[in-house]
Amino acid sequence: MINIDIKPIGKIKTPYKTFEDIPIQGKFKENVEAYIELKKEYEPGLKDLDKFSHAYLLYYFHKSGRVTIQGKPYLENVIHGVFAIRSPHRPNHIGMSIVKIKKIVGNKLFFTGVDMLDGTPLLDIKPYVGYFDNKENVISGWLENHFKNGKMLDKVTVNTKDVKEYKNNR
Amino acid sequence: MINIDIKPIGKIKTPYKTFEDIPIQGKFKENVEAYIELKKEYEPGLKDLDKFSHAYLLYYFHKSGRVTIQGKPYLENVIHGVFAIRSPHRPNHIGMSIVKIKKIVGNKLFFTGVDMLDGTPLLDIKPYVGYFDNKENVISGWLENHFKNGKMLDKVTVNTKDVKEYKNNR
Repeated sequence: MINIDIKPIGKIKTPYKTFEDIPIQGKFKENVEAYIELKKEYEPGLKDLDKFSHAYLLYYFHKSGRVTIQGKPYLENVIHGVFAIRSPHRPNHIGMSIVKIKKIVGNKLFFTGVDMLDGTPLLDIKPYVGYFDNKENVISGWLENHFKNGKMLDKVTVNTKDVKEYKNNR
Repeated sequence: MINIDIKPIGKIKTPYKTFEDIPIQGKFKENVEAYIELKKEYEPGLKDLDKFSHAYLLYYFHKSGRVTIQGKPYLENVIHGVFAIRSPHRPNHIGMSIVKIKKIVGNKLFFTGVDMLDGTPLLDIKPYVGYFDNKENVISGWLENHFKNGKMLDKVTVNTKDVKEYKNNR
């Protein structure tokens, strides 16, 4: 059995103190800004990242104490496998968000596209490479029911009862 | 200090037995097929993932025994921060690939877009959602020098000396 030794490389500082505050995806509150405070020893690893517009953040869902192998996403009342949704209650509790890089100052990276709790332990940062990461001919499974011409359907964004239920189940 | 307990949820079975065999990105050998063998207890988590065209795989770079905070990527002879490249020699050694889902049979997920070693420990699977993950106005930092009109420049793909050097340094 392989030994996997994973430790935070820093912390994510956001305005979101509780699950209720967090948007489902960062793009729904796109002007909110947050920052990463990287451990000092990793600061040289940020060199040239400020030339990218976007980055992947990998982090640890530190407030999820359970694993739900099948669950309901926010957008609909249907059960899916955990690997077909983005729920935090997943094996290993690793979260991933694509954020927009605003600036890097010393060991701090400022970004928008915030959808994580304040104090979230950061595990990795990877550059978003349009040539590799923007995919063609994408079919997004059950989410296809909730979008039309690239826009989320209105009925979904106003369904606050579902949002509340979803957030309580996060 | 938070305790992060991460264990493989399965293994990735690929035709690549050594680093030398692996393409830089899976799309460069797009017909090569591989599969995930998920631990039996996680099989229900795959429900409805086969309705997606693509998925993110998160895995552990189990053959990298070191961390290089600044390093050279394959495509050029310039030093960048580890968070601006996709090197396996990164803090926490977490790898990420976007793969194309071919089919799911029981606890096996068959895919193309293969760029990982045979036997790689799998940490998570997330659905690729075009509406969230395809980004507009992307600037890809130092990689912009190596692409034109979305295609990689020829001089790069034939530079086998660099490829060899890069792979030896993986």
